[in-house]
Amino acid sequence: MKIYFSGSISGGREHEAIYQHLVARCQAQGHHVFSAHVADPIALEAEKEMPPREVFERDVSWVKECEAMVAEVSTPSLGVGYEYGLAVQLGKPVLCVYRSGVRLSKMISGNPAPNLTVAVYADEAELDRQVDAFLKSLTG
Amino acid sequence: MKIYFSGSISGGREHEAIYQHLVARCQAQGHHVFSAHVADPIALEAEKEMPPREVFERDVSWVKECEAMVAEVSTPSLGVGYEYGLAVQLGKPVLCVYRSGVRLSKMISGNPAPNLTVAVYADEAELDRQVDAFLKSLTG
Repeated sequence: MKIYFSGSISGGREHEAIYQHLVARCQAQGHHVFSAHVADPIALEAEKEMPPREVFERDVSWVKECEAMVAEVSTPSLGVGYEYGLAVQLGKPVLCVYRSGVRLSKMISGNPAPNLTVAVYADEAELDRQVDAFLKSLTG
Repeated sequence: MKIYFSGSISGGREHEAIYQHLVARCQAQGHHVFSAHVADPIALEAEKEMPPREVFERDVSWVKECEAMVAEVSTPSLGVGYEYGLAVQLGKPVLCVYRSGVRLSKMISGNPAPNLTVAVYADEAELDRQVDAFLKSLTG
């Protein structure tokens, strides 16, 4: 499946290791992750030079093309908020995961869209279970 | 005019004084600001008790009903990213202002939507000029 991974870039990189883990978990199950560079500090550094419009249009076209979105929403981020909203509105299955103890925006936790799953995790094992269950629900 | 003001809540409150200034500026010119509570720490404290779904549905209905949005985007925020995207997609005139020196998400700075204005400000005087110009462009 084609998956869009959404994680904070400008908003802060404190959960970068979790982004890498999530992208690797999807890839290990044979899925194609459009935005794997979000987990990769070297690729991100190169993207800094890209004109904003080019990044915006590429990311929006990837969101439109993906079959599902996995978003890590522990770090507040304008870009992640935008992308999650676009994907939900386009009817894509979206999984938002966040670390337990984080104060999550009610614009995510309060969204009743049937194609949105919001899940909390206390550790990597619980995160894996959430992601695997989501991916399994899509592929049957 | 009916204005929706968008500012960070869960994402961080370091620009609260600017939120208050922005809301007051709009109100002083006779506009109705739906979400004036975002600038008000006492009202926000009360909102903490509100069920997430109630907050989500109220805010989405305000975004749909507003005639324009003013968003302060200096603080990364999932909710602001979501609301800005929704307003732009609904064709509302949207002003995103951010403090000079902040690294703004390319999902805002790269968005070519004709109904979106992105403006930087170095101080309160420049912020006022940006907001006044935006409001004036709407009311003719």
